[in-house]
Amino acid sequence: MKFTVSEIAQMLDGTIVGDDKITIDSAAKIEEGRPGCISFLANSKYESYIYSTQSSAVIVNRDFTPKKDIAATLIYVDNAYTAFTILLEEYQKRIGKQKYGVEQPSFIGENSTTGEGCYRGAFSYIGKNCVIGNSVKIYPNTYIGDNIEIGDNSVVHPGVKIYDNTVIGKNCTIFANCVIGGDGFGFAPQADGTYKAIPQLGNVIIEDDVSIGSNTTIDCATMGSTIIRKGVKIDNLVQIAHNVEIGKNTVIAAQAGISGSTTIGEQCVIAGQVGIVGHITVANNTKVGAQSGLGKSIKKEGLSLSGSPARDLNEHLRSMALVRRLPEMEERLKDLESNRETSDFQERD
Amino acid sequence: MKFTVSEIAQMLDGTIVGDDKITIDSAAKIEEGRPGCISFLANSKYESYIYSTQSSAVIVNRDFTPKKDIAATLIYVDNAYTAFTILLEEYQKRIGKQKYGVEQPSFIGENSTTGEGCYRGAFSYIGKNCVIGNSVKIYPNTYIGDNIEIGDNSVVHPGVKIYDNTVIGKNCTIFANCVIGGDGFGFAPQADGTYKAIPQLGNVIIEDDVSIGSNTTIDCATMGSTIIRKGVKIDNLVQIAHNVEIGKNTVIAAQAGISGSTTIGEQCVIAGQVGIVGHITVANNTKVGAQSGLGKSIKKEGLSLSGSPARDLNEHLRSMALVRRLPEMEERLKDLESNRETSDFQERD
Amino acid sequence: MKFTVSEIAQMLDGTIVGDDKITIDSAAKIEEGRPGCISFLANSKYESYIYSTQSSAVIVNRDFTPKKDIAATLIYVDNAYTAFTILLEEYQKRIGKQKYGVEQPSFIGENSTTGEGCYRGAFSYIGKNCVIGNSVKIYPNTYIGDNIEIGDNSVVHPGVKIYDNTVIGKNCTIFANCVIGGDGFGFAPQADGTYKAIPQLGNVIIEDDVSIGSNTTIDCATMGSTIIRKGVKIDNLVQIAHNVEIGKNTVIAAQAGISGSTTIGEQCVIAGQVGIVGHITVANNTKVGAQSGLGKSIKKEGLSLSGSPARDLNEHLRSMALVRRLPEMEERLKDLESNRETSDFQERD
Repeated sequence: MKFTVSEIAQMLDGTIVGDDKITIDSAAKIEEGRPGCISFLANSKYESYIYSTQSSAVIVNRDFTPKKDIAATLIYVDNAYTAFTILLEEYQKRIGKQKYGVEQPSFIGENSTTGEGCYRGAFSYIGKNCVIGNSVKIYPNTYIGDNIEIGDNSVVHPGVKIYDNTVIGKNCTIFANCVIGGDGFGFAPQADGTYKAIPQLGNVIIEDDVSIGSNTTIDCATMGSTIIRKGVKIDNLVQIAHNVEIGKNTVIAAQAGISGSTTIGEQCVIAGQVGIVGHITVANNTKVGAQSGLGKSIKKEGLSLSGSPARDLNEHLRSMALVRRLPEMEERLKDLESNRETSDFQERD
Repeated sequence: MKFTVSEIAQMLDGTIVGDDKITIDSAAKIEEGRPGCISFLANSKYESYIYSTQSSAVIVNRDFTPKKDIAATLIYVDNAYTAFTILLEEYQKRIGKQKYGVEQPSFIGENSTTGEGCYRGAFSYIGKNCVIGNSVKIYPNTYIGDNIEIGDNSVVHPGVKIYDNTVIGKNCTIFANCVIGGDGFGFAPQADGTYKAIPQLGNVIIEDDVSIGSNTTIDCATMGSTIIRKGVKIDNLVQIAHNVEIGKNTVIAAQAGISGSTTIGEQCVIAGQVGIVGHITVANNTKVGAQSGLGKSIKKEGLSLSGSPARDLNEHLRSMALVRRLPEMEERLKDLESNRETSDFQERD
Repeated sequence: MKFTVSEIAQMLDGTIVGDDKITIDSAAKIEEGRPGCISFLANSKYESYIYSTQSSAVIVNRDFTPKKDIAATLIYVDNAYTAFTILLEEYQKRIGKQKYGVEQPSFIGENSTTGEGCYRGAFSYIGKNCVIGNSVKIYPNTYIGDNIEIGDNSVVHPGVKIYDNTVIGKNCTIFANCVIGGDGFGFAPQADGTYKAIPQLGNVIIEDDVSIGSNTTIDCATMGSTIIRKGVKIDNLVQIAHNVEIGKNTVIAAQAGISGSTTIGEQCVIAGQVGIVGHITVANNTKVGAQSGLGKSIKKEGLSLSGSPARDLNEHLRSMALVRRLPEMEERLKDLESNRETSDFQERD
């Protein structure tokens, strides 16, 4: 997709200095630009780059005064960083809008309906009794089972698999090869050493504005629902077990895992590769550091935790510093012991 | 799918007290019930809920005597919990049975055969020379390569990819987007710093009654077979490397990883995010705690291990308690040191 | 695929002793052989097996002199191990070559081209403006978005999903259900506690000879490129975040995760379940041990690191040994303390 500088300036309510007919087909950091790119300069720390950038256009703040000649066309706006973000969003929106209609072959079951402006890619599968909202994009090679609801403007990326009875809100983004609603890992041990699968009859409910990364798995509840609240952002390769509930606006980084029936509060930050045991409750605003293992409920809000088992971040750091110094501590211990022997000897003199 | 209370009572050999014409379309915990749900009461701890539950019917033990009025229809059985489980299984079986026949388009190669009562979903792919047993369900968007055997009643969920020469037993469940039989991670370092792939010509053998979670990967053997024995249950996002063998009825939780050529015994429990190195043997009945790293063979059966590197659980807990107390230990060390200095000083007096 | 012993001997420039008409359909370790298999004997440690092997043929070194009768046909070559590897490679190549042509239904968008000798499996999807090189194999159920380049001889396994603008070099292998180019995990916190997705407009560049394991995820750059250099080998379930760069011939084992904007040097070895934080630089030839957490840049080349946080391997091992001995150290501390009390008491006498 291409824009002229003058179209962009109009979009951003900006003023052009330079050639307004140049066409832009990409965005780049100011130091990595090339012809056809647009960049921005918001922080004066990077000002030197604007005099040498290969980008065709640069968005700058209205108070920017060049100290040398600049080859690029400039677009003056109130806030260069915000304007750049708006531009990127607009670009994404237009690209997204290009996808609509139904590619063939694709499959849709009885009593399933799709809203207006939807895209259904080739080799996508929708089961029975599904209600797909307006402007929903369903990419190729996806599987959407039976009795599923997907709210307006949500995007189901290629290869996503969604099991029966899942409910997905509006404006959600589910990235490629995610699995939503597979069976919880529940088995009853039998007397002969075998395990019997406990039927998993619940579902997954994903509220509005949720983002779920590639290859992440969210299991259905045994009974009731596994719930991902509004605004939650989940990275790639994350495991969310059965009957978990993740509170509003909580962020979970890649490869973290949350065990069954645990409830995570709102506005929490769970870093990469964290493990959280089952059947606990984690208070709002809790931060859990990378690779930590959280083994018990956190009742106080706003704590920063780290380590495996996880505890107060500062205490953990203090202990870790001493673990590093253990060889030295042992030397000191030996020193005291040999000293004692000497002194015992002296006393016996 | 809907049942009347009287159909359910018949299924469970139960006695109805209340309206036997009510229809049930879902199951719920007694405290979360709503009209149309069936619940159970087995533990008297939860008895209070039966007087206020919104569920339309509740399964109770024959010796249950209500202390107040109950709105729900009651079904009296010998063992309420067992009966409820039987009901859930029956429900799942009937739902499962609804899937049979071949949806189009789907692909099946030369010399491949499927048994009776199979389901092949749209966009499923079966290569050449495959033997698919009776009542096997192959969901949409799956890939089954060449020369593959799948035993009776096994279920291959949407998006599963199975490489050539894999053998899968009866009554197995492979959840969505699993990959079975990809190349083992074997590379021979070359003099120039590059690596050359070692051809991986073995396969994967999965015995009967195995369950494998979503997005789990099981690599084929370099030569010979990677083997998952009867009754093994594997959670989501687990990595099983080439030439691994997992013993009967072993359970492996989410995000654990087992490196190449390692043999895990029977009835082991490997918790979430555990890592196990290659080329070791782990005895039967070993338990490895969450996030542990197991670095050497375990010869004695029945041990509980934890930590990274993993060792006896109790010893690990004792050490971890002292790690937390390291700042205090250092204070005590300082104290002794300053005391010695004083005493040295006194002695010099 | 079957070969006669005489075809194999010709391929390897070998000399046959025994029946040269036997057909071989598989390879096996000498101790696990069965009729129809070929094995090799390179290390005299395993010589005893050659007298009892069930394999139909064994490749041996030219200087091998049997001490007893051998049932198998022997193929004498200069280097038995190398010859065996060449044979396996040849076998794989021929199997690979069997796949070509286009299976239906499959999808290819406007202006996309494929080279000679390509395979496009059923239910594979190629978007617009893609350039697919010669002899590229695109397996079933794959998704290749728009504006994507794939170099000669690369193999895209079943279920792989590749996002728009990705560039893949020659001789690459992308295993099943990998996701290349999903959005980086970038969200701007808003005043009301919600997060706003930062548009991710960059791409992924994968150079020649790269191997990527099943279910691995590689995110696109926010702007610019996430780059995987020539010869890199990545295992299953690995997470590579946005704007990461992995240097030439680096090896990354299963379930490791590398956070955004980090640069890993050449010839590094990152073991399984390692986590590496964002925005750091790791020097060439760095080795990071399993489950380690690397939290800061490594400037010196050739270090071996371990632990979480990761530090020098030997120092880490020393500290870990002392962590195990902490209960004993505490006893010694108590001992000194009680001794001091005694001696204080004596002094006060």
